[in-house]
Amino acid sequence: MARIRLGMVGGGNDAFIGGVHRIAARIDDRFELVAGALSSTPEKSAASAKALGIARSYGSFTEMAKAEATREDGIEAVAIVTPNHVHAAAAQAFLEQGIHVICDKPLTSTMEDAHALEKAVADSASLFVLTHNYTGYPMIRQARAMVASGELGAIRIVHAEYPQDWLTSPMENEGLKQAEWRTDPARSGAGGSVGDIGTHAHNLACFVSGLNVECLAADLQCWGAGRALDDNAHVMLRFEGGARGMLWSSQVAPGNENALKLRIYGEKGGLEWAQEDPNYLWHTPHGEPKRLLTRNGAGATEASSAVSRIPGGHPEGYLEGFATIYNEAADAIRAVQGGTDRASAMGHLPDISSGMAGMRFINACVTSSSENAAWTNL
Amino acid sequence: MARIRLGMVGGGNDAFIGGVHRIAARIDDRFELVAGALSSTPEKSAASAKALGIARSYGSFTEMAKAEATREDGIEAVAIVTPNHVHAAAAQAFLEQGIHVICDKPLTSTMEDAHALEKAVADSASLFVLTHNYTGYPMIRQARAMVASGELGAIRIVHAEYPQDWLTSPMENEGLKQAEWRTDPARSGAGGSVGDIGTHAHNLACFVSGLNVECLAADLQCWGAGRALDDNAHVMLRFEGGARGMLWSSQVAPGNENALKLRIYGEKGGLEWAQEDPNYLWHTPHGEPKRLLTRNGAGATEASSAVSRIPGGHPEGYLEGFATIYNEAADAIRAVQGGTDRASAMGHLPDISSGMAGMRFINACVTSSSENAAWTNL
Amino acid sequence: MARIRLGMVGGGNDAFIGGVHRIAARIDDRFELVAGALSSTPEKSAASAKALGIARSYGSFTEMAKAEATREDGIEAVAIVTPNHVHAAAAQAFLEQGIHVICDKPLTSTMEDAHALEKAVADSASLFVLTHNYTGYPMIRQARAMVASGELGAIRIVHAEYPQDWLTSPMENEGLKQAEWRTDPARSGAGGSVGDIGTHAHNLACFVSGLNVECLAADLQCWGAGRALDDNAHVMLRFEGGARGMLWSSQVAPGNENALKLRIYGEKGGLEWAQEDPNYLWHTPHGEPKRLLTRNGAGATEASSAVSRIPGGHPEGYLEGFATIYNEAADAIRAVQGGTDRASAMGHLPDISSGMAGMRFINACVTSSSENAAWTNL
Amino acid sequence: MARIRLGMVGGGNDAFIGGVHRIAARIDDRFELVAGALSSTPEKSAASAKALGIARSYGSFTEMAKAEATREDGIEAVAIVTPNHVHAAAAQAFLEQGIHVICDKPLTSTMEDAHALEKAVADSASLFVLTHNYTGYPMIRQARAMVASGELGAIRIVHAEYPQDWLTSPMENEGLKQAEWRTDPARSGAGGSVGDIGTHAHNLACFVSGLNVECLAADLQCWGAGRALDDNAHVMLRFEGGARGMLWSSQVAPGNENALKLRIYGEKGGLEWAQEDPNYLWHTPHGEPKRLLTRNGAGATEASSAVSRIPGGHPEGYLEGFATIYNEAADAIRAVQGGTDRASAMGHLPDISSGMAGMRFINACVTSSSENAAWTNL
Repeated sequence: MARIRLGMVGGGNDAFIGGVHRIAARIDDRFELVAGALSSTPEKSAASAKALGIARSYGSFTEMAKAEATREDGIEAVAIVTPNHVHAAAAQAFLEQGIHVICDKPLTSTMEDAHALEKAVADSASLFVLTHNYTGYPMIRQARAMVASGELGAIRIVHAEYPQDWLTSPMENEGLKQAEWRTDPARSGAGGSVGDIGTHAHNLACFVSGLNVECLAADLQCWGAGRALDDNAHVMLRFEGGARGMLWSSQVAPGNENALKLRIYGEKGGLEWAQEDPNYLWHTPHGEPKRLLTRNGAGATEASSAVSRIPGGHPEGYLEGFATIYNEAADAIRAVQGGTDRASAMGHLPDISSGMAGMRFINACVTSSSENAAWTNL
Repeated sequence: MARIRLGMVGGGNDAFIGGVHRIAARIDDRFELVAGALSSTPEKSAASAKALGIARSYGSFTEMAKAEATREDGIEAVAIVTPNHVHAAAAQAFLEQGIHVICDKPLTSTMEDAHALEKAVADSASLFVLTHNYTGYPMIRQARAMVASGELGAIRIVHAEYPQDWLTSPMENEGLKQAEWRTDPARSGAGGSVGDIGTHAHNLACFVSGLNVECLAADLQCWGAGRALDDNAHVMLRFEGGARGMLWSSQVAPGNENALKLRIYGEKGGLEWAQEDPNYLWHTPHGEPKRLLTRNGAGATEASSAVSRIPGGHPEGYLEGFATIYNEAADAIRAVQGGTDRASAMGHLPDISSGMAGMRFINACVTSSSENAAWTNL
Repeated sequence: MARIRLGMVGGGNDAFIGGVHRIAARIDDRFELVAGALSSTPEKSAASAKALGIARSYGSFTEMAKAEATREDGIEAVAIVTPNHVHAAAAQAFLEQGIHVICDKPLTSTMEDAHALEKAVADSASLFVLTHNYTGYPMIRQARAMVASGELGAIRIVHAEYPQDWLTSPMENEGLKQAEWRTDPARSGAGGSVGDIGTHAHNLACFVSGLNVECLAADLQCWGAGRALDDNAHVMLRFEGGARGMLWSSQVAPGNENALKLRIYGEKGGLEWAQEDPNYLWHTPHGEPKRLLTRNGAGATEASSAVSRIPGGHPEGYLEGFATIYNEAADAIRAVQGGTDRASAMGHLPDISSGMAGMRFINACVTSSSENAAWTNL
Repeated sequence: MARIRLGMVGGGNDAFIGGVHRIAARIDDRFELVAGALSSTPEKSAASAKALGIARSYGSFTEMAKAEATREDGIEAVAIVTPNHVHAAAAQAFLEQGIHVICDKPLTSTMEDAHALEKAVADSASLFVLTHNYTGYPMIRQARAMVASGELGAIRIVHAEYPQDWLTSPMENEGLKQAEWRTDPARSGAGGSVGDIGTHAHNLACFVSGLNVECLAADLQCWGAGRALDDNAHVMLRFEGGARGMLWSSQVAPGNENALKLRIYGEKGGLEWAQEDPNYLWHTPHGEPKRLLTRNGAGATEASSAVSRIPGGHPEGYLEGFATIYNEAADAIRAVQGGTDRASAMGHLPDISSGMAGMRFINACVTSSSENAAWTNL
């Protein structure tokens, strides 16, 4: 089957997440990157495109969307990998041209932008895929399937955490570009750690439990001197249907790199998963020995094996989980091109509603914290 | 040096914690158990005393306190290991007779009892030691010393959790005596999981950080059908001086036995300790490789080595940590007998103020939760 | 820089390692797969090529080597991913045409073939890269650099092991193709577990320690009923210069997937690395706390960061380590094309001499074992 | 039941293992230590006895054996905790007086002494218990029972290792008493690491597998400058009945404290246990998920629970495992005093035959290594 022609907005030199998207798009050989508006100026963009061997470079995403839409061999999909405040406008530009959008998270930097984008997606026939990449990890898929099948019984407790340590010191004042925009409300939005990584923890908690957060009580803190956004957040969760949870995001917890962790307990058993060791899933059926399930190993089910590439004991990692989102996006694009309706084509893929849930999560955290941790609906 | 003559209240057959106290008292050979009021009836008490080789058995703690006080060779100290609602009256009976008290936690089952006991301790010259046994673990001692010495810088974040799974099913309806009284407000007090194990997590968080909890917001739940007390609790903490924290206690988290865990982060580094693997302490100085410190191994300091018995790599466990409390209680008893003032003699030992802090913690959790997780002062 | 035109021999449907090579070749975007002789018949080859979107399919590697050599746009390099007994002839065919060879391990199935191939490489100006892929893991690179820099002092002890469990039951009699050829001397060669995975352990031990094995004493066993090749091997090692070691390979150790593990001890410290958790490296300087080094985390050095793609805490895995071999092969190919001499261009890459060392290791194991574990020179 | 009157030979100030024996004897309250010949001179012995509160001190074990045998309230058993070369004579002195002996391992320092002691035991009606304390760990008991019940099927492979690092530097030249005698052939015997810790690994491998070592091939090394005994040993094992194994002992592997580890694989599954984390036992039934069994937790059986004191998740350690040997020795002593025959009374307890097997293991290692690792029968 022919590869999907892909464009990219953002992801020039110095960017972290753009390179990740490019590798992820390549791993399963479903995409061909042919166009880009990679940087903030036409010159920088062209230089980056040349270095990466990308055929067509544009000075802006607006220009790119229009030009590509008129070409016979124009891009079929675009990956948006800019800082958060650019997501909405860029995505709208391509959706308006009927080009499928694969967009990094969080959805946007403001609720206003999010609503506009939500409307744009509704008005379009194109796909909008949000790269909540952790949902692509095989053992996360298996965990979700185990919960859905009732193996844990009714879910009672959900704990999600995502601690990091990279902002323990004020890196944003020391020229680290990643730190600069991620601590800047104008580019990141109202949430600091809750927006950048808390949304991942929230998304994963919901994805695996199959439950939505109804309301939350949040205590946000800002430890970095002069920092405008939260860098540590404590959140209590109440889910629809009665389950309860806790969520912690932090950028100031020394010794934690990307220590995203999920624990779920039901009346019949528990599950535990850690992003830094993603090929393992602890399953603790109540009253039985703990079981360590491994990707493509004994105890692995179709849900995880279907998104695995290599045998158990040969670890897959972050890039492969990310690639699964791209691979499934490719399936979805080919499906809608073939006439399948958009909702069916999306399947498990995180979509605009995941993005809106994330935005509501960020806003509820910020609002709750400003009201002394009052319970706030999402 | 002669062994201290010890009595025991509670701890007859079927009891769990009584046997633990007896082993703990023996390990360092500082006590001799010579008297007991071990059960609820004189007959049962006598039978248990005989089985354990305890010389003198009494029908009640009242009788025992009076009789022992009049003997030349009467007990110097008593261990109180009954259900919570008996602690206060028993402790008072011995304090009034000038007999030192070593009492299990939590302090009492009601705040009223706690205040009465607090007064009794104040009015007495005898020692009151509360067996917050986890403070006896060597690596906990080292953690506390590292924080105190400033090795972590100013403390920002404290996370403590103590999940268990033994009440996942309603064991209290199936004849398990331990489950019966621990889920009964009349015997346990207002707190379920927060009283039984949350107090341990709270105590450890304060002991190691050197900080007191100023206020908290708690969301308590009760998952066991018909259960009167919380079996799962989510708590956000604010410490005096500004540090923030989270605390989780649970008796319904399948796969967790006694998974007490503490994580502390300061501006210069972090520490992580788990009770089930107590000979290890992770130290993560910011920007340096993670270090795994081991009891009596490389990186161990005087604070931990002083309360260790055997070389690194030969694990000490729960009983040894508990024994350290007894060993230090013996030191304290001999010290006050030798004229040292009570406060100096106590040193690190958990005392009535630890007990009162625990009671305030339980009450604040229950109050906050009943007010929809409103911030509640301790 | 333009992508290198790549061909592939073997790797049709049902094959495991062919797919791995293709992903590995794609991850860093240095190769374009344009030709193949993927299966044992022209029809099957064509079907596989079509399914994979490979432009040109050939009925045999001989045909392919000749045809591609005459095309302007012919392949610059070929990946050989067949069962072991085909390696030599295929590699020779392409070397004779001046096409660079990337070949799976072990080198060949017989010593005779190995010598012929060694000569063919010597007679050619083309590169011969052996995919000892585990040498591509970042923390293995760091371990090697740490040993080389003297951080461990003189090396005393080297332990390598590679246990698996997939042949615990006689899968070769149950239609598993992978099991069939790997237990067949005609296709695998004289070594069973020692050839398939013992060579990896041997290679890694030498790669990291910088030492060659001088002689060994081996006790090979065959537990599978009717199996012709060893499925479990115990080996004692003596290295040039005096270091000693042990090596274990097994295909019948239940609970082990691909549990390749390396431990090295010198007079100043130790290192420990496990393939299933490859982003970690334990460093134990003597008399200091254990340190857990992480890929691209605190303590990571240039040696590992240079072959990393993403931040610490986002795990890279087997495919990324494999891709590093391809990436460095691409560098080497472009370098020799630009005039660099072959030896310089190869750098760290495993080459014909690694392959010969592996063959000598296999043969020494088989010989030693047949002589009751007599010490046998490599 | 009355406590058993116990004496001790060795174990004065500065000794490590004597204190361990004393705690172990106290934990389950079955012994009362009333007499000792604790040091090499009467003065030192008396000082140590006084410090420890031991009633009767003797100038030599000979004197003690005779004197105690004539007392009404003389000791019923003696613990021998001297350096190895004293074991035989001391044990014989007490056996001759009809006093039960609990003796540290290895049995003796010479094969000649061992045979003499073996005869003395045969000639006596008293018990001889060798404190191979690791056999007292609950999960080791469970592992043994699981193997015996056939849960692993026929045993194929047994790996045991006991690495330490304390002799990495020449501590014996720096005044460390423990290092002095353990590296001195006159006091330790012919084996260095193989005698001190290799015997533990050997004993545990046999105890759990239920198999005896038939022959071995050993490569012993001595890395410490000027050291007379091996400090690192590589050994290949062949068991009666066909199982094969490897054994490693080391005192020069930086980062290892007391990293005794046992792995056993049968045709139906595997087991893995590590002394430093003794409350866990991995069970890997072939083709099923890995199971982490915990002491007194889900999956624990009678074999482990019978020798546990406290609930799962509250770790027991080295001292409790050691105490189990003492507790069972007390049972055995009371049993033979009550008329049970000696063999029946001993049950699981390590005895003279375990000691002889250990001596044969040491000698075979030394002999094999001196003959270039020739296979040597035990």
